[in-house]
Amino acid sequence: MPTTKKRDILLYSDTPRSADALYFGGVEMADPYLAFSVRGRKFAVVNALEFGRLKRTSDFDSVLSLEACMEKARRAWPRHEAGAARVLAVVSRELKAGVFTVPRDFCVSLYRELRDLGVRIQVSGGPLFPEREVKTPSEAAALREGNRCSAAGIAAAERLLRLCRIRAGRLVHRGSVMTSERLKVAIETACIEAGSVSLFTIAAGGDQACDPHERGSGPLRPNEPIIVDVFPRVTVTGFYGDMTRTFVRGRASDAQKAIVAAVRAAQKKALATIRAGVSGVEVHRRVSETLAGRGFETKHTPRGSIGFFHGTGHGVGLEIHEPPRINATYAVPLKKGAVVTVEPGLYYPGVGACRIEDVVQVTDGAPRMLSRYPYAWELR
Amino acid sequence: MPTTKKRDILLYSDTPRSADALYFGGVEMADPYLAFSVRGRKFAVVNALEFGRLKRTSDFDSVLSLEACMEKARRAWPRHEAGAARVLAVVSRELKAGVFTVPRDFCVSLYRELRDLGVRIQVSGGPLFPEREVKTPSEAAALREGNRCSAAGIAAAERLLRLCRIRAGRLVHRGSVMTSERLKVAIETACIEAGSVSLFTIAAGGDQACDPHERGSGPLRPNEPIIVDVFPRVTVTGFYGDMTRTFVRGRASDAQKAIVAAVRAAQKKALATIRAGVSGVEVHRRVSETLAGRGFETKHTPRGSIGFFHGTGHGVGLEIHEPPRINATYAVPLKKGAVVTVEPGLYYPGVGACRIEDVVQVTDGAPRMLSRYPYAWELR
Repeated sequence: MPTTKKRDILLYSDTPRSADALYFGGVEMADPYLAFSVRGRKFAVVNALEFGRLKRTSDFDSVLSLEACMEKARRAWPRHEAGAARVLAVVSRELKAGVFTVPRDFCVSLYRELRDLGVRIQVSGGPLFPEREVKTPSEAAALREGNRCSAAGIAAAERLLRLCRIRAGRLVHRGSVMTSERLKVAIETACIEAGSVSLFTIAAGGDQACDPHERGSGPLRPNEPIIVDVFPRVTVTGFYGDMTRTFVRGRASDAQKAIVAAVRAAQKKALATIRAGVSGVEVHRRVSETLAGRGFETKHTPRGSIGFFHGTGHGVGLEIHEPPRINATYAVPLKKGAVVTVEPGLYYPGVGACRIEDVVQVTDGAPRMLSRYPYAWELR
Repeated sequence: MPTTKKRDILLYSDTPRSADALYFGGVEMADPYLAFSVRGRKFAVVNALEFGRLKRTSDFDSVLSLEACMEKARRAWPRHEAGAARVLAVVSRELKAGVFTVPRDFCVSLYRELRDLGVRIQVSGGPLFPEREVKTPSEAAALREGNRCSAAGIAAAERLLRLCRIRAGRLVHRGSVMTSERLKVAIETACIEAGSVSLFTIAAGGDQACDPHERGSGPLRPNEPIIVDVFPRVTVTGFYGDMTRTFVRGRASDAQKAIVAAVRAAQKKALATIRAGVSGVEVHRRVSETLAGRGFETKHTPRGSIGFFHGTGHGVGLEIHEPPRINATYAVPLKKGAVVTVEPGLYYPGVGACRIEDVVQVTDGAPRMLSRYPYAWELR
């Protein structure tokens, strides 16, 4: 097998769609472009709009002009459009490239066009850059920064909830009803100010929060758990934060208190279990046992699920969800340096939901916390 | 050829990566999932995290439980992982699906796994949903809303620039130097408050603005053109806005005034040319002639390009860049109902840059403006 270093790599994507492309080129690109390596040298082919910026600010050894490459492709195939496949065919022939390895999510139409043009190409058997799973110290610092942004968002939400008054079963701030939408604006503004962008922010209360990926809409109510899940992407690095806290504004019921205590206990159990060499399955089993041991049942019905019915955690890096996983099926031992979320939850419509999420780096001992926010949750 | 309506469609993506997936399912999904149609009925396969939300809020006729489908796949192939390919193979067999058409950017590894499992599958020859190019009245309204968000961002930038004082060749606000970064925070916060998210916001001055896709960093200066390009995505619909204005805070030079006047004249020429049946090439030629006729030369050098060296415009919808194009090579006549940007620009390092961009819908007559913001640019 060729080593990672010597493989010729080929990517064709924009960076919002491909973390591999961002990792490879070290520069954001809003439109799909050709990026590849030949014998360890990295090349990009971009149009005049991007040329100067990539020359100055990317990891590419050589930035080629798309317009010039298209001209060569037109000379080679005068009757055909000079699309990405013909551009790459011409350039890779000039460079005497070997076999390109492409990521598993490579574009099928381009793959077939390249093969038809005689470009040698193979699909990666696993992740294109398996080294992405183990975070370097600077990548861990970028993830810590992501969680500083998450914490800024959660702090904005907590602050706003504390400022609300309770009036006739509603939360009211500055004369109007507090809604999921208002809370999300406050969270997302705080993330922008902290240097990140938060998409799909969750601020959901009551039964809405019992649907773990429901973002939340409409009025938020007192005495009901509100799940706030913030996973912003830091603009300068592309790395994510991912944190969740659950708040009750007003007074929590005994049932809600039991749910929150169980989820926090399950999170602590996970943190006590995670270390290099332990499998995701093992960690998840301990979390499930902790919750079940406190009497919290998990059930799947045709109308949905209740209890604890998602994984305990997932890898996070340049993608919000990436290897490894901490769930019922991921039997691979956790690697030292991997960064994962730890986010048990319980969801009972009619009673309430709770999820508590932090991010840690796996070590040979206790995991290193990369997120930091208090766990006080009942805002009286 | 089967008509669009009767084709069996297959998608496997998250919606940030696939506008087709958002168009097909009418619901945001942060993780890749199987979405397909069989004889006109739409199906989604999602895990317990997404199940309830999709049942309530999507366009799918049937939402299937991923966990249940995986169980079936495990029974059919006890020795294999129940991945997306085997899940689809089992479900499509049950449903007696025909030949699935997949988008051109479909994932190559899944494509090959499906073929190996005997699932009949073909790659779309062109866009999967060509009807996306012609916008319905409600889609045009969503694009207008996108540009209302763009305008909110640009207004925030203009407001902040006007508030700056000019001190020793710098723009100063509240005691500290105004930077591209501060301007972008103001723009992006305004977009959040307007109900949208702006990625890749451009607020670049001086020579930085001469690189059209340079986002801008560091201090902004008086008497220098500052390009502000804001293309936010509306959170509830997924449609984009896309507008650009160029400001000078202080006094513009005669050379800068000539550049701005030429760009605005070129934009007006484009608006006077665009109508159904006219090709993008024709519109772009008129724009180029207008700029050249005012003495503005375009040149490509090994260090970069100067003058007007990008297309006049692009289609915009659920993607920021989609068909049609208005450039030197897109010879297809514009369709009635298509929505395009109109954004000529001039870039001369050492002098300054200007781009002015609006969004219009193509009609049989004068195009319908879908964006609205004043053109005053010299902020004395």
